[in-house]
Amino acid sequence: MSQPRGPLSQLRRGHEELVLGLLRKHGPLSRGELGKLCRLSRTTLYDILAELVATGAVVPAGQQDDAPRGRGRPAETLALNPGAGQAIGIDFARRALHVAAVNLAHEIVGAASEPHDADLPWEQRVDLAERLVGRLGGGDLRLGALSAIGAGVVGPVGGPADGPADSPADGPPDGPGHAGPGTDPDEPLPHPAQVLLRERFGVPVLLDNNTRLAALGEAIWGAATGGRDVLYLRLSHGVGGGLVIAGSLHRGAYGLSGEFGHIVVDPRGRPCSCGGTGCLETVASVRAVLDAYRARGGRAADVPGLVRAAEQGEPGALGLLAEVGADIGGVLAALCNAIGPSVIVVGGELAEAGPALLEPIERTLDARVMPISRHRVSLRRATLGEAAGALGGIALVLHESPLLSRYPAGPDLALPGAGPGFPRKNLSKEGS
Amino acid sequence: MSQPRGPLSQLRRGHEELVLGLLRKHGPLSRGELGKLCRLSRTTLYDILAELVATGAVVPAGQQDDAPRGRGRPAETLALNPGAGQAIGIDFARRALHVAAVNLAHEIVGAASEPHDADLPWEQRVDLAERLVGRLGGGDLRLGALSAIGAGVVGPVGGPADGPADSPADGPPDGPGHAGPGTDPDEPLPHPAQVLLRERFGVPVLLDNNTRLAALGEAIWGAATGGRDVLYLRLSHGVGGGLVIAGSLHRGAYGLSGEFGHIVVDPRGRPCSCGGTGCLETVASVRAVLDAYRARGGRAADVPGLVRAAEQGEPGALGLLAEVGADIGGVLAALCNAIGPSVIVVGGELAEAGPALLEPIERTLDARVMPISRHRVSLRRATLGEAAGALGGIALVLHESPLLSRYPAGPDLALPGAGPGFPRKNLSKEGS
Repeated sequence: MSQPRGPLSQLRRGHEELVLGLLRKHGPLSRGELGKLCRLSRTTLYDILAELVATGAVVPAGQQDDAPRGRGRPAETLALNPGAGQAIGIDFARRALHVAAVNLAHEIVGAASEPHDADLPWEQRVDLAERLVGRLGGGDLRLGALSAIGAGVVGPVGGPADGPADSPADGPPDGPGHAGPGTDPDEPLPHPAQVLLRERFGVPVLLDNNTRLAALGEAIWGAATGGRDVLYLRLSHGVGGGLVIAGSLHRGAYGLSGEFGHIVVDPRGRPCSCGGTGCLETVASVRAVLDAYRARGGRAADVPGLVRAAEQGEPGALGLLAEVGADIGGVLAALCNAIGPSVIVVGGELAEAGPALLEPIERTLDARVMPISRHRVSLRRATLGEAAGALGGIALVLHESPLLSRYPAGPDLALPGAGPGFPRKNLSKEGS
Repeated sequence: MSQPRGPLSQLRRGHEELVLGLLRKHGPLSRGELGKLCRLSRTTLYDILAELVATGAVVPAGQQDDAPRGRGRPAETLALNPGAGQAIGIDFARRALHVAAVNLAHEIVGAASEPHDADLPWEQRVDLAERLVGRLGGGDLRLGALSAIGAGVVGPVGGPADGPADSPADGPPDGPGHAGPGTDPDEPLPHPAQVLLRERFGVPVLLDNNTRLAALGEAIWGAATGGRDVLYLRLSHGVGGGLVIAGSLHRGAYGLSGEFGHIVVDPRGRPCSCGGTGCLETVASVRAVLDAYRARGGRAADVPGLVRAAEQGEPGALGLLAEVGADIGGVLAALCNAIGPSVIVVGGELAEAGPALLEPIERTLDARVMPISRHRVSLRRATLGEAAGALGGIALVLHESPLLSRYPAGPDLALPGAGPGFPRKNLSKEGS
């Protein structure tokens, strides 16, 4: 992460959060009122306010109109700047770019997508990102108030290991689409997307795997809003996912968490692109499912075709989806017993199959999860579509930024309508 | 948890941590020096110091000997009280009680165990706990300085769900040995152990599942010290475990995480005590393994007998442990792909089998984990033995208490010799 993390900077961030939280709760306040409410020393408070005003997060909001009379001129009040502190989320998928932006009130001001070739160089991907972002919100997004960018890329992204490794680590796959974990704890290897975005936009860039970011997006704004322990499974050309644990995106010791597609479902199965054998991806990816369907005489050329066949009750399509669903349900049951999520979200193109796939998943999940957990976990379809990764990028920024109240859902400073720790307002997507 | 959790109390705890951290780093400091270093207002600092002195966490440490001359009498300094802030960990296992205690310097001052009948009433278990604790540290543990107790019990323990449940929750199993999750988010049903300990010792009592606490113990003081993402598997009369995620014990939405023993390894296998079929516990518990060994003509009556047979190269024992290890390794590989731990710790009686069991586990783990992760995760035997749960109870207290520095390992306030976020000092166990 690009923010300093020492205890003093953490304390300072805590102070900023307190001040921003008070302004959110009470509306405009004078410096004196803020001082009484936050109990910080005058010097510390004025320092923090000066910086919040300088970054545009807080703005002067006129004189206090109910000030006691006869005690000099009324004090100036300060308020949150609703146009500042914007964050951008960018999902660098293999063959498409997705962007979204949010204002300080954490309202989505727009989202946009554009497909591109898989081999488009990073320079041109970032050009495209800049163009798409420029068109968001009708083109009047004030990038001067941008606080950070959260970007998702394909492949493992992660901090270095926490403990001593017994063996030297294998080199991560390299080249476009893969972000290698760094070898030095203090200097992780920067990803080209991170470097180029930082140059172009001049703000901190937080990076994670784009499927994990989709998990965070669904947990914050999508199918699992408010869930603190959420498992997200994506069934697409690859099969992957992400875990939100205790409200935070879980990255894993080597940036390799959420690899649900490479859990073995049949040790005597087919070889997988990961080098393993019989992984879930070898039976539940888009290609695996379509190949299996055609091998049984089915005639669908793509997922919509298969979905239509299933909707029309075609036994071959239904039977295949039932088998695939059983494999998926078995994997999810194992993970539920281990992790205990309250919500499982299934996304990706194959989730379009709806009940024909989700019902078999749920049957096997119910049969294999511990009976005591059976009715406690809720299986849901993803709701954010292809914007999930970009929205997750924004959520990552909001997690890391002092401009977001990361407060636990205490009764005193919770936002009206906010879930545990996160505001959820007017999710209005506006493509362009 | 029994501590208030609002943002203001969090901020206050942050202030306390800062003050305690400065005293840890610099040794004795005057109030003036503390004020300069922490930047808190004089009122806030004096408030916090008054409370820290009142609780015995901080004590007067004499006059400043290098104070500038000629400016009145030298200022009094304050220091951490090494005898205060003790914490106790208690593991209420099914047929035994384990206790351990730690002083403010987080040195283990003693650990003790005593077996008992499985149906011993809670009142008498707590009596026994009090007697065992009284004998720790040669009987001179000053319980007046006790800050909290962390206790482990058998069965699910957990906060209520975070999201809306789709169906009414099943009632949890009840009676001794099971801690039911509460139905009201604000008022979880108290466990008898929690109620009785609070009455007896007059301090906050934090509760969790005892196997999960053993996971935390191993991650803090045992085989995975310093690991931020740790998976702990316990192979005993039951098979269970726990996850430490990002340095914290992971509880799961319904307090049902870490149930590795109920992951299905053979859908056509034997019925399990959980109500499921073919769970890992049906092949890898102590009884399952001994039964299978005897069914093949083996003559061991207990785990030590089986271990001896394996050590003597008896093919039946080795073959059985290889099969059991393969089932365990398959489950661990799936969990590694999903969670990405840096360390897997295997504990419980069956871990005594050593390489005869661990090598087959590792072979299957290596074969089934994503190839890119293969050399990144380290498989280790537990090191804390039966004290792990009680030590984990202490770790739970230290996590929650302002008396522990929960600082990330920032360079400015890190303790000499401390791991990421946790001091590890002189782990000297002293039974009595």
